[in-house]
Formats: sequence, structure tokens, C-alpha cells
Amino acid sequence: MRVEIWSDINCPWCYIGKARFEQGLAAFPHREEVEVVHRSFELDPHAPRAARPVIPLLAAKYGMSLEQAEAAEARIAEHARGEGLPYLDGGRDAANSFDMHRLLHFAKARGRQAELLDALYRANFAEECSAFEPGRLLELAVEAGLDGEAAAAVLADPEAYADAVCEDEATASAMGATGVPFFVLDRRLGVSGAQPAETFTRALQQAWESRVPSPLIPVGAPGDAEACGPDGCELPQR
Amino acid sequence: MRVEIWSDINCPWCYIGKARFEQGLAAFPHREEVEVVHRSFELDPHAPRAARPVIPLLAAKYGMSLEQAEAAEARIAEHARGEGLPYLDGGRDAANSFDMHRLLHFAKARGRQAELLDALYRANFAEECSAFEPGRLLELAVEAGLDGEAAAAVLADPEAYADAVCEDEATASAMGATGVPFFVLDRRLGVSGAQPAETFTRALQQAWESRVPSPLIPVGAPGDAEACGPDGCELPQR
Repeated sequence: MRVEIWSDINCPWCYIGKARFEQGLAAFPHREEVEVVHRSFELDPHAPRAARPVIPLLAAKYGMSLEQAEAAEARIAEHARGEGLPYLDGGRDAANSFDMHRLLHFAKARGRQAELLDALYRANFAEECSAFEPGRLLELAVEAGLDGEAAAAVLADPEAYADAVCEDEATASAMGATGVPFFVLDRRLGVSGAQPAETFTRALQQAWESRVPSPLIPVGAPGDAEACGPDGCELPQR
Repeated sequence: MRVEIWSDINCPWCYIGKARFEQGLAAFPHREEVEVVHRSFELDPHAPRAARPVIPLLAAKYGMSLEQAEAAEARIAEHARGEGLPYLDGGRDAANSFDMHRLLHFAKARGRQAELLDALYRANFAEECSAFEPGRLLELAVEAGLDGEAAAAVLADPEAYADAVCEDEATASAMGATGVPFFVLDRRLGVSGAQPAETFTRALQQAWESRVPSPLIPVGAPGDAEACGPDGCELPQR
């Protein structure tokens, strides 16, 4: 089974929802058969690249006072801590996450996506040194086990893995996602938002019980073409 | 889009079919958006672990003379060379491929599956030194870019990735596969056998044109639960 999770690094409910999903997965008997894939979703593709403190941004976005924005962020922090997640007091930064998503695709190709995603969330939500400071992303890539030179080359080339990010976003849109986190099980079941762990366990169970694939649409000549089976290989006559 | 290819290393049509698929993929305009995954299929799960020359096995299996088996293998070799693939004269070895499949799953987790699969095919079909000789598999893992110590630990533990191999085989069986190579596009379209490259291009095109996912079955509370969207994040009231 495959679970695809659309998220943005700037999204606190993605950070929290990932922890709840993992709790739900831990309670699922067939967890060893589940492959988890990160998918890209930028909440604000036009956000500037430079890091900005999130509290004034929230205040402006929601028409709140700075105190109200601080209180709202503090309530989100409480939800995070309720899941055992560290969370900064006094506000994280926000910025454009396109490069992070590109690097997550590179990390996927190198089998290090889960490690990099954890490093990015931790850096953004729990560490004083902003994940968006120049040079920090490359440090996090290396911490996640990626080759520094190769990661730097990806970061230096704005085209690298850019199509993969856009393709993820188009797919999310085609599936009706309007926000994140957005969880898709075997491209059949969907879970929106940071739902309770039990909801994820239930969704996994439901996907498992209905996992017998629907009949495939055959393309090409019938199956006894050039192939091998338990009784041997088709032997060409010439 | 995702293409899953069920194969066995002992299967010459898998070696040939992979090359034809790759030609078909190269002619597909959206090839950058295609993820290719190897899936396990053992043609003979009860095959002994020790390498045995394939010509006498073929002769016994098909009730042929050794000369007839040699000629059949030579005709398969011609098909392989027709796709630009090197192929041994005089016969490869055959043996149990379970450890190879386990190692391919480990390589998948490390982002090195494609490299290892190529190394295994090359070693089995094109090199004098058998892929099944003791120690050879570990050498091939290192050639494919895997950490030798970690690969050796996987090989030494017969349980490691064994469930993943069995799960692949159960999935193939549930989808009606009776032989390999068996290609599945987005779990919707199927191609059996080493079909011509054009068939693969056509299947990719057909999968691409019909790739808008069917509506997801929602699980859990509606989507305005704890989530972030383009207009901001849901702010908890407490």
C-alpha cells in the first residue's frame, strides 16, 4: 500500500498531522507493507525567498493584533506539544518553500526523503536558527544523509526537480485538494487535515480491506507473448 | 505516473522487456513524470540456491536435447542482442533469486534499485562470473552504490525485506499476473510480456490521457478540519 502526503514546510498542521498519521500507522497491523511518499504543495508559491517572522505575517493576514497572532501561534504550539513535538516559543519564520520541495524530490531519488522532511520540519518549527537562512538548507540536506556536493548542485539549478514539484501540485489539484495536509491512500481514499490518529488507522484499515486491485485494462498483444512463467519461458522459433 | 515492473532475474524476457520498455519510455513526451518501480516475482521459489548451468535445465524442462536447448537459448540471445543488450554465449546459470529480490527492496529504500537491477541483469546474462556465485551478490550491491556493510547485513538476515518480496508476489497474483515481465501503469493498465517498444509508448500515452484520478473516498471529518490553505491556517480556539 502507498500513502502519499501532500504538505508544505510552512504548514504547522502538516507538522502536527504527520505525527498523528505516524501514530495511526504505528497502530496499524500491516504497517510494514505501507510505503509513505511526501508530495509537494506550496501554500504560497509567490512568497518571497527571504525569511520573515511569522507573527506579523499572521497578524496582517487575519487582521489581528500582534498579541492575538502570538496567542494563535501559541495555541497551535500547544497542539504540537500535545503530540510530543517540539515547537518554538515566540514564532518561527516563513518564506518560499519551492527549493525545499525540489530538494525533497532529490532526496526521494536518493532514498533520504523521510530524513530530510523530518529535518526541515524540526528546523522550521523547533529551532532558533531559521530553516530559511542562506546556507541552512544545504546543512540540513547533509544532516539528512545527502551528499553535500550533489545537493548543492540541485539547489543551484532552479530547474532541477521543478517539474516534479509542479506535477505534485497539479495532481493534488486534480484530486480536489484545497489545503494541506492531504493524505491519499493508494489513490483511492483521501484524508484531509490533521485528523486524530484513530482516523488514520481507520483509513489504513479501510484501504487494506479494499486493496484487491480492480481489473487492469490490458494494452498490447495477449499475455502469452514473450514472457516467462512457472512452467518456463516462451521459446522463440526464430 | 508510476510504472511497476514485476520481473525475475532468471527471466530473459524480463531483461529484454526492460530494454524495450525503456525505449518506449524514451519516446514518451512526459517521461520525466514517470516513476519506475521494480517488483519481485520468483519464477521458481523452490529453486536451489546453488548456481546451475541453464542449458541442461532447459533441456530437462522442455524435454529437449542439449543441442536443442542450446539453440533455443541462442535464439533468445539473438533477441537480446537485437535490443542492444550483451548476452553470454554458451549459457548462463540459474538459481534461487529470493536474496536478489530482498536486496532489490533494500536498494529501493536507499534510492539504488535501478542501479542494482541493471547490475544483476548484466551479471546474470552477460558476464562469465555467475551472479549466483557466493559473494558475487554483495560485490554487485557495492557496484550499484550500496553500503557494503549494510547490504551484507541484509543478506545475512533471511527475514530482511522477505515480507516485501512476498507482498509483491501476492499483489501480482491478485492482479492476474501468471508470468513476467508484467508492467502495471498507475495500477490501472497492464502490459504482459516483452512487447514491442511502441506498445509501451502507447500504454504510457493511454495512461497519461486517462490519468485524472477518480474521486477519492473521504475518510474522517470534512476537510475544513485542522489544515492550512492558500488563505491561511485554521486557528484553534483553544
